[in-house]
Parts: sequence; C-alpha cells; structure tokens
Amino acid sequence: MAKLRAALVGATGLAGQQFIAALRNHPFIELTGLAASPRSAGKSYGDALRTANGMTAWFVSEPLSPETARMQVISGDALQARDYDLVFSAVEADVARELEPRLARDIPVFSAASAFRYDDDVPLLIPPVNAAHAPLVREQQRKRGWKGFIVPSPNCTTTGLAVTLAPLVERFGVKAVLMTSLQAMSGAGRSPGVIGMDIIDNVIPYIPKEEHKVEVETKKILGALDAGGAALTPHDIRVSCTCTRVAVMEGHTESVFVSLGSKATVAEVTQAMREWRGAEVARDLPSSPVRWIEVMDDPFRPQPRLDRETHGGMATTVGRVREDGVLENGFKYVLVSHNTKMGAARGSILVAEQLRAQGLLG
Amino acid sequence: MAKLRAALVGATGLAGQQFIAALRNHPFIELTGLAASPRSAGKSYGDALRTANGMTAWFVSEPLSPETARMQVISGDALQARDYDLVFSAVEADVARELEPRLARDIPVFSAASAFRYDDDVPLLIPPVNAAHAPLVREQQRKRGWKGFIVPSPNCTTTGLAVTLAPLVERFGVKAVLMTSLQAMSGAGRSPGVIGMDIIDNVIPYIPKEEHKVEVETKKILGALDAGGAALTPHDIRVSCTCTRVAVMEGHTESVFVSLGSKATVAEVTQAMREWRGAEVARDLPSSPVRWIEVMDDPFRPQPRLDRETHGGMATTVGRVREDGVLENGFKYVLVSHNTKMGAARGSILVAEQLRAQGLLG
Amino acid sequence: MAKLRAALVGATGLAGQQFIAALRNHPFIELTGLAASPRSAGKSYGDALRTANGMTAWFVSEPLSPETARMQVISGDALQARDYDLVFSAVEADVARELEPRLARDIPVFSAASAFRYDDDVPLLIPPVNAAHAPLVREQQRKRGWKGFIVPSPNCTTTGLAVTLAPLVERFGVKAVLMTSLQAMSGAGRSPGVIGMDIIDNVIPYIPKEEHKVEVETKKILGALDAGGAALTPHDIRVSCTCTRVAVMEGHTESVFVSLGSKATVAEVTQAMREWRGAEVARDLPSSPVRWIEVMDDPFRPQPRLDRETHGGMATTVGRVREDGVLENGFKYVLVSHNTKMGAARGSILVAEQLRAQGLLG
Amino acid sequence: MAKLRAALVGATGLAGQQFIAALRNHPFIELTGLAASPRSAGKSYGDALRTANGMTAWFVSEPLSPETARMQVISGDALQARDYDLVFSAVEADVARELEPRLARDIPVFSAASAFRYDDDVPLLIPPVNAAHAPLVREQQRKRGWKGFIVPSPNCTTTGLAVTLAPLVERFGVKAVLMTSLQAMSGAGRSPGVIGMDIIDNVIPYIPKEEHKVEVETKKILGALDAGGAALTPHDIRVSCTCTRVAVMEGHTESVFVSLGSKATVAEVTQAMREWRGAEVARDLPSSPVRWIEVMDDPFRPQPRLDRETHGGMATTVGRVREDGVLENGFKYVLVSHNTKMGAARGSILVAEQLRAQGLLG
Repeated sequence: MAKLRAALVGATGLAGQQFIAALRNHPFIELTGLAASPRSAGKSYGDALRTANGMTAWFVSEPLSPETARMQVISGDALQARDYDLVFSAVEADVARELEPRLARDIPVFSAASAFRYDDDVPLLIPPVNAAHAPLVREQQRKRGWKGFIVPSPNCTTTGLAVTLAPLVERFGVKAVLMTSLQAMSGAGRSPGVIGMDIIDNVIPYIPKEEHKVEVETKKILGALDAGGAALTPHDIRVSCTCTRVAVMEGHTESVFVSLGSKATVAEVTQAMREWRGAEVARDLPSSPVRWIEVMDDPFRPQPRLDRETHGGMATTVGRVREDGVLENGFKYVLVSHNTKMGAARGSILVAEQLRAQGLLG
Repeated sequence: MAKLRAALVGATGLAGQQFIAALRNHPFIELTGLAASPRSAGKSYGDALRTANGMTAWFVSEPLSPETARMQVISGDALQARDYDLVFSAVEADVARELEPRLARDIPVFSAASAFRYDDDVPLLIPPVNAAHAPLVREQQRKRGWKGFIVPSPNCTTTGLAVTLAPLVERFGVKAVLMTSLQAMSGAGRSPGVIGMDIIDNVIPYIPKEEHKVEVETKKILGALDAGGAALTPHDIRVSCTCTRVAVMEGHTESVFVSLGSKATVAEVTQAMREWRGAEVARDLPSSPVRWIEVMDDPFRPQPRLDRETHGGMATTVGRVREDGVLENGFKYVLVSHNTKMGAARGSILVAEQLRAQGLLG
Repeated sequence: MAKLRAALVGATGLAGQQFIAALRNHPFIELTGLAASPRSAGKSYGDALRTANGMTAWFVSEPLSPETARMQVISGDALQARDYDLVFSAVEADVARELEPRLARDIPVFSAASAFRYDDDVPLLIPPVNAAHAPLVREQQRKRGWKGFIVPSPNCTTTGLAVTLAPLVERFGVKAVLMTSLQAMSGAGRSPGVIGMDIIDNVIPYIPKEEHKVEVETKKILGALDAGGAALTPHDIRVSCTCTRVAVMEGHTESVFVSLGSKATVAEVTQAMREWRGAEVARDLPSSPVRWIEVMDDPFRPQPRLDRETHGGMATTVGRVREDGVLENGFKYVLVSHNTKMGAARGSILVAEQLRAQGLLG
Repeated sequence: MAKLRAALVGATGLAGQQFIAALRNHPFIELTGLAASPRSAGKSYGDALRTANGMTAWFVSEPLSPETARMQVISGDALQARDYDLVFSAVEADVARELEPRLARDIPVFSAASAFRYDDDVPLLIPPVNAAHAPLVREQQRKRGWKGFIVPSPNCTTTGLAVTLAPLVERFGVKAVLMTSLQAMSGAGRSPGVIGMDIIDNVIPYIPKEEHKVEVETKKILGALDAGGAALTPHDIRVSCTCTRVAVMEGHTESVFVSLGSKATVAEVTQAMREWRGAEVARDLPSSPVRWIEVMDDPFRPQPRLDRETHGGMATTVGRVREDGVLENGFKYVLVSHNTKMGAARGSILVAEQLRAQGLLG
C-alpha cells in the first residue's frame, strides 16, 4: 500500500524538526514536502538550517538523515494541496491563521498551532481521551465547505493534565482541579525561547496566555460531542492554574490538586490511572505507548529528566498520589509529560493515526 | 551598654555560617562562643573549616572575618550556659533534642532545628505575624522549671506562606490554602544536600517531611494564644501542599491558591498585603525590613534570583495576584521568600530581637 | 565643582544598563542623557524598558532608580555633542561605526564596542596595565581633526588575561600564552544572547571572533607607545586561545599556560602578581579596587560565582599557580574576571577616570 | 557456547550500575554475581538500592531489569573466585587495593579503580590505542604468581585525550600537549559527588589528583612494550593540564593544544583523525563503535550534551581543529568523550573483549 504523502509547514523551526524526527520510518506516512519561509525556499533542507557562522541549527536529539537534508525546501505560500494527502503544521499562530485554512480547503491539516483550537467546529484531540470527538470534523467540513479540515493538537501543558484527569472523570467524576506547572524550556521554542541568563538559578512565574489555554482546553477536551456530532459541550470541571518556567530542557512537571465527584481512596485513584486503557481506537496506533499513564511508587518520582522519555515520550508518568484534605474528595499528585513528544509533534501524528483508523483520513 | 553574649552551636555547618554572617556587627548581640562537634573542638574556627584537600569550607557569600576565623571552637558538650546570655542553635534535630534542653535550663535558646517546634508550650514565632505568642515562653519555663527557654524558628517553607497569609487572615479570614513550592537547594544544606547530578535539568517532586511541617506549622503560627498565655489554639485554616525542589541556589518560590473567609477583589487583596505592617513590636527591630511584603505589578515577578534579597532577604515578595475561580472567594498568587535569611538564621535573630523588645530576654 | 555631563548611547540594552548602574553616585560624572533607538525615543526610560507583555526589561542586579526611570530617552541620531562633556557608548559594533565618529568630532567617546579597537591611532586602555598609552588620543585627534576622540575598552575576555600577564611581563618577560576560556553568558548579551536550551547541561566550544580579538588585543594592550606618542608597537608575546561558553551567569574563568622570559619559581610568580600595583595614575581612581589581582591559596578557587564580585568586580582573582613542565619557563594558573564590570562598563568608566586624572578629559 | 560468568564488585554504586547497564545482553559475558558492602549483603539487588525514605537509588538512564533487581547481593569479602571466569571492579581505590589482588590470584580482574594503574607490570589499556600492551599481563602473572591478573581502565579524562593523540602520534609524532578539561559531574560519583549548590552558575577549577593522573597515564598508554613483553617504556610526550568541573551531567570536554613532531596542515591533522581505525584487534569487538573518532566541521561542535552519546558513547568527537601559532607545529582542537561509557564501565568491558579476542581471557 502506498504511504500517505505529507507536507510539513514550518519545517525549519524547533517544532518542525520534531515532526521530522517523529515521522522518520513511519509505517504509513511519508514526508514528501518541507515548507518554510520564503527565505529558505529553494535551498536544500540542510542548507536552510545552516547559519551565517557555520552552525547547523538542528536541535532535536535524533540525527538529521542525509535524505532529509537533501530535500528541497519550498515556500509555504507555494505549497499545493494536490501534491499531498495531508499536512502537518508547525508554524506560529499568526501564520497558521492564513495558511492552514487555504490548505484545509482540500486536505486535512494537523496543527501544533493554537490558531483554531477554540473554534466551535474544531475538535481538540488527545486520542486516548476523546477520540469520540473526531466526527466533529465532518461538521467542520460541512459548515466551511472544505474537503479537508483542521485538527490542532492541544497546548502541551494541557495534554498531561487531561490524560491524567480522564480516568478520574470516567471513574469518579471530577469537579475541580488546581494545578501549578513547572514547565520545560523547550515549550518556548528558540526564537529566542528562554534566555539562559533568565533561567539559570531561577524560576519564571509567568508564561503569557498559558494558564488561559489550559483552563479552556481542559474543559473542551473532557467535554462531550452531542448525538448528531455537530456540537461539543465542554465539561463543567472548574480549572485554575499557575504556570511557571524552570531550568529543565524537556518535560513539563505539574502539581495537581483535584476534587473528585465521589469518595475514593488513594488506592482506588491509583488503580483508576493504572488500569486506564483509553479509547479503544487509540490502543494500537503506531505511536501509541504500551500504557498512557505510569503510576510510580517511589515518592521521588516522577522527575522530568528521568521519566520524560517513558514509552517513547508518549506516556504521562504520575507519582505522589495522596489525599488532599482541603478539597471535597480531594486528592493530589504530580505528573510529568513530555511536552514536545506526546504534547506536540508526536501527539499530532497520533491524531492523524487515529483519524485514519476511524476512516476520516485518506 | 554591654552587648548580650551569644553562643552558636553547630557553628561549622551551612546554617551555622549563616548565623555568623547575620550576627556580624549586630547592635546588641555579640557572638562570643562557637561550638561544634568534638572533631572541631580546640581548633580555630578557620582551621575547623579547612578540609583535607586544602579547601576552606565557608559557603555563605559574606566573607569570613579574620576575627571569627581566629576564634577557638569548643565542643557543644562542653558549652557552659553561665558564659552566655543566649544561644543560637544550628544543629540537626537529633542533636538539638539533647543539647537544647540542657542549655535552656539556664538561658534562652533560639533554634533553627525542628526538634521542639510541635511541643504545646513552645511558640513558633514570626515576629510580624505572631509576636503575641511570645508570652508562651513563660508557661514553658513554669512547666519545665527552666530559667531559659527554647524558641525554634519555623520551617523555611512555612515562613513566606505564613507572612503572606497573615494580612489576609486579619482582613478577610482564610479558610483554606493549597500550595506548591519550588524550593531552593540551600534548604537541604550540604551533607550532602542536593547532588548536582540530581537537580540539573530536573525537578525533584518530594522533600521528606516538608509538607507535613508546612501544614502543621502554618496552623500553629496563625493560631491564638489564650488569655492566660498558657495555651495556643491553632488556626482552623486547612492547608494542603506539595513541596518540590528545583535548580535554584537560594529563595523558595511558592504557588499559592487561597480561599478567603469573605468576598474580596484583587485590588483589595493586593492592598491588604501592601499595607500590612505586622505586629507593632516587630516594626523597628534591627533586622526588620522596611516592609514585610512587597507586591510587584510586573507579571514576570517575583523570581527567586531577582527578588530573594529584597530588603536584605527579610521581605517576602509577591506577584501575580489573581482571582482563582475554583475555590470559594478564591485567589492565587506567587511568592518568593529567602529561605536562609528570613526563613532561617536572620529570622531566628529577629525573634531574639523581638523577645528583647518585649522584655523576655536578658 | 560641576560634574561632567555624560550621555549614554545604547542605554536600553544590557551593556547600557550596566553603565547606568555603574555611574549611579559617581563623584564627578553625571549621566544627563540617555539615547537609544528611534523606537524608544520620546519615552521615559522606564517606559522604554517595558515590553508588550508587561515586563520591565531591567536586567542588572542594582535596582533602577526612579530618577533614571523618569529620564526621557532621545534617539542616538538626535544626540548633540554640545550638550555633553563625554559619551559612553554601549551600542553594537555596526551602529558604533557611524555614531561614535560623529560624536568624537567634538567630545570624548568611551566605548564598549569593538568597532575602532584595532585602528592604529586608537589606544585600548586597561588603566593599571597601560595607562601610558593614553597620549595616543592626541595623535588620534591630530590625524582625524577631532576635538574629541574614541577610546574603546578591550574585549571582556582579554581584560583579565592582560591584567594577570602585566606583572609577569614587567618582572620576568612573557614569550607566549595559551589560554582556554570558560565564559559567562552575560558576555553574549540578550538579543538573544545564549539560549537556555543550548547551555544547560552543556558547553559551547566556540564564540565567533572571540579568539582573534583576544590574540590581537593582548599584544596591543601589552605593547609600547613610542617616544613621540604617535605609534604603538604591539608586544611580541605569542597568544593562542580557545574560547568556550559555560552555564555561568557572570564572570569569565580562564585556564592560562604561560611561558616566561626568564626562570622563576611558583612563589616568585605568585609574589609578582600579589605585589603588583599597576600604573601609578590608576591607583586611586574612584573605580579602582584595593588591589587589581588577588591570588588565592585555596586550590578550589577562584570560582566565578564566589569570586567575580571581589573588590566590586574590579579585581582579577587568580589561583592554582603551578609550574607547567611543558613550556619553557612554563607556569599555569586559573583566573576569574568579572566580564561585565572590570571587563565592560565599569572598566570603561575607569578609563574615563584615568584620562581625567591625566588631564586628557574635560 | 557458554557465556563467561562475571562477578561485579561495587555493584550498588554509580560505577557499578554503569557496568550492569553496559553488560545487559552482552553476547558472551553474563553477570552472575553482584557484590557490595556487608551492609547490602543478603538483600536482593533491588532492595539494596532502596533508601530509608523509599527512593530506589538507581541512577543510570537504562532501566533496572527485574531479573537484576531480584539477584541476591553478596559481600565482596565472601566472593569466591572459583564461581566466576572474570571480575569487574567498581570499588573505590582503597577497597580495590585489598580486594582485587585476592581475586586476581585466580581470575582476571577488570577494574575502574586507580589502585594498580601505575604498577610497572600492569597495562593501562584503551583497545584501539594500545592493544599491543596486553601481553604485559603475562609478565604480571609470572611476577606475582597469579593465575589471573588486574587490568585497570584509565582515568576517564585521559581516555579521550589518548584516543585523539594516538593518530597524531602515529602520523606526525607528538612532542607535547597542554590540555584544559571541562569535566562532567558524573565523574565525581555520588558519595556525595558534586553538590548542586557548588556547581550551579559556577566552575570549580580543581579536581584533586586528576591532573597528575592524566599526565602520567597518557605517557604510559602511548608508550611501547619492549620486545620481550616484560616492560613498558612510557612515551616521551610532555603533558600539562588543568582540570575543571562544570555543570554538565555526562561527557568531558577538553581543550587541547598539541605540538606535533613534524609539519602538518589542518587538513592533514583532520584526516589523520578521521581515517584512524586503531588497533586491528579492537575493530570489531562487541562494544566497538563504527569509528573511534568523529571530526565535526560545524565550529559549534562538539558539545557534551549533543555529542557524548555518539556511537553509543564509545566514540570521541572532535572539532575546531586549527593551527595554534604558538607551539612548534602547534595545533589546537576540542574533544568530547563520554566519561562513564568509553571512559569507564563500557571501556573496561571493551578491554575484556579485546583480551578474549587475543586469547588472554578464558
């Protein structure tokens, strides 16, 4: 069977590089087009990454393959939908706002940008959590008259939180969550991202817009699609958070306080997470991990450096599950989620895999 | 007027060094005795700090004065109360348990150790917050038949939290607080303290016993001394926290969610903290800062590296005051408190200053 | 006596902020003009530092005074030499190339930029090392027909090296030096400077152009002005270096191997540095430290975090003086020099102080 | 073919854990005995790693296998040579001094400890560099009357230096080397190793005994075994170095200045390293990398975080090859070598593989 031909827009940036690394050797998706800004167009991808002072600006740990380095970069504006079966988008929100709808007229767009996350007809998919929201893309196509559609992936800080809340919602109900994040630098990208002098021996207690994203997206992701598949009702969970930046390379740590809908014990909460298998359709996708959540008994875990790569960076690790004593049916725990794997490129690829399994793609 | 003669036990450790630095040039306390383990006894203080490979193990940023370096170290066991007016104690809890009562039979002991913090007749003083608890030392003397007493300083993570809660308790009442700390390495001392390989590019989500200390101590500090001065009733505030360690040298950052006893606005909460002057007796002590709390408008503050030294490390800096939306009358904010100044040695000295102002010392 | 009126160009950047901090309360220089790019012109300095998301981009540890925050920023292009007695320049090399000569036509310009460092008629002054080069500014004025002149300060990595070589050159002669630097992030500024993700858990083994600067500047600084004061002959010392970047905030560490011109012992080399007082004229300037070099006996020193602030960041600290065994009359040592104090703004102010003491300024 | 049965002494420490990780799935060596201090004896290995506060003290990135966790730890003193074919030793030098000779009476001991490195009849093997020294173990057996022998691996800082010097020695001759290291924390182990507060925002310019080890070991490794195989003549290369510690997890960076024995160009030096295949016997061992040295053109490389894992941590990466201009036939370059893989456990295993290929083992 021929592989699906995918274009990647925003290919030279950090997020784009993560898509390239994640799609290498994918069983049914082949990256056949790399698009970037006009400045890079016409160059080989390897040359496009070379800076004035001789550096190759390739930042992910997997090496850049010679084949990819030789691919010729095209301008995002010149990208033709007819040459591809789908598009992955790693551009900034303002570029996404113009580029993604143009492409979605004809083919599916899987995007890491926030531009369309909050539109009513756009699902925000985390396959194990809300695969059931996928049919909303039909409504999106109908309403917008598109042959394709846009499916953005959630904010990276939301992903780990939503994954760990899902089994609690299913088993006990969840009324409220208060979360403090200790986020990695990679979430800020590289232009300029987090400056070394600002983060060494320091904590930055504010990440613009992040808290609002987590609060809105969590409700949307945990919400319910109505019977007709045309409208999403957000979950009525109340979410409040404080998002901070710490001197960590990759892997967001989150300190979660949660109020459940019914009584539970620490053992039951732990068991609910451990036994959770998530949506059926998401269980055996090429990018699915063995388990979505790993609960650790060692009280010093999870730690971002030790645990972020669990199951290829696709699992959320959890530890320190305890009763909270303040909230009604309150529990608290700490989670680590890989913000640039499950929380970004690989998460977006997982969504494409899910939609294909559901017959909504290609 | 002759200065009060103070002995310091645990003089060679990191906490002890902080006492030495903080007492240099004190207006009415003079460090006339330095005690440490028998291994150091008989050596000059400078020699006691010298390690086998030639290093001088002096770790605070203020330089070690030649006079202090020349002082002869005595063994803690050999310390005679009659030679001093008071003692500062920077020993570990297990040593404190034996040593401090022996000395307190005759003279006041101000301690950084946790050994006696939870005893009913022992006040846990933060001068601006609960100077009114000080008379409990009379009850302690009566009950134990001592001429001196023990006054421990609170856990360093509790201090910043209690300082910021105090004005809210006074003005609005506080029902509950949920806190996540991002604590500095210096809180763990140096034996071995936090190992470099464990904290670079990482977060450690657990600090043994820390959360329990914060929960119990906060209630005690905010509690009320009964009319007779013989018993403390803890505040009924409910406290839940998760304490983590980050790659910061000094200065604990805390993300606080608080449920007030009555309605308020962000402006009123901010104003309550800004206008708070604390207990009258604590306002003009030698170690008192200009203000106990500084509320910052820049949303990227407070940051531990930039703000920990505010007013000599004696002020708690606060920022990001916002409504919380989940808790009843809920607000959230971020604070930074200097864990080894206000939260340790200098805080303990401040307590001694308060007791002297109240006529309870010397 | 009226103070000298100084303008600062490049006032909003990190280097400019360091000039502002260093000139606060200067005994005879007053900062009366702050210039920056047209984008900032017309705003108060405090407003010019405020970013779109509410942050005040003030990065030096000394607080920004309210008086400075209220000063109105003017555009560098609009700066009029007649309003000032001298100018400090903290702009990038390309801006310096246009702006500094325009101002130098009328008044002295003390610059942190590299634009004119290598011109034959431009001295590169480190007051204790080569105050004797200062008369070269007369030649510069004559040749260029200027009333003012340009005196750049050396590259920050060169400064500590040249300061420690000076006593060796004077006492033993120096034939060659091989140096490896471990440089702080602050040397790279903030636009974007060193990105956090690149430096945590890492070393960057290349700093563009840095090594060439050190090699050329060291020879020039240690050179000799001819009798007529019209030409500088570089020292024939051979210099080779490798410059790297490490995860340090401030303070360059340098590992130096040096070949002396005559036999010496470790004690003599140490003594030569310890006793060195430098040029007479530089000994009691307002910014002069008690000693230019501090040699430490503790083999674990100097360390950048512990020693960079020695004598207000104006001293170079040295340790680990040993025989080398490979080079002829070879010795090796480690130095720490504060790259943004002695090695930048404060060093440039020191030069202005020297020239005034020599009657070459104002 | 039955696998060789290996015991590991010092199994619970960091170095021991690295041996366990490196020997997992080894084609012909099986770890059948784990020895540690009497405190751990009798416990399962997993239990021996568990600390009082619930942490599992397993520090290498590869997970601990359940099979290994279940193995029962024996006391080093109780270890019987007859149960094994060889021993890997990861104990401290003082323990090694007693334990290793006792075992070597009967079976070969491959050690990471420095205790016997400098004995005349003990080779210091880096297989690609000096496999030819291996027959010295016969002399060691003869002289000491042992059936086994001790082969220590070199100091981790020496390894990368010796590997890069080897092709230069072979092609051009090398007269002298001056090296400054920027060493990772893992080299210091964990008891307590490098304390976080000492290394964040800092450089430590001294590592006790390290420089002497590098100087002596480099000469020995590059030396020649005489015709009879009974004596090693050290190479007459002169070596001088300064060893520093930086805030890097793994991977030593070294800035090298080298004086060659004959004229060369940068291209020739680069080519000599690139084409070097090392000793024939070492080319296809199970732990051999594709190439021993990778020379990079990007001037910003090698960097420890990006390059330490090259070819499984067994390759030395080199960059910035330039003429030096000071030394006779002088060149300079930067290298990165994985100090706990090629420079420790995996390097020691490689030596065992070599000796087996040479018929000197089992």
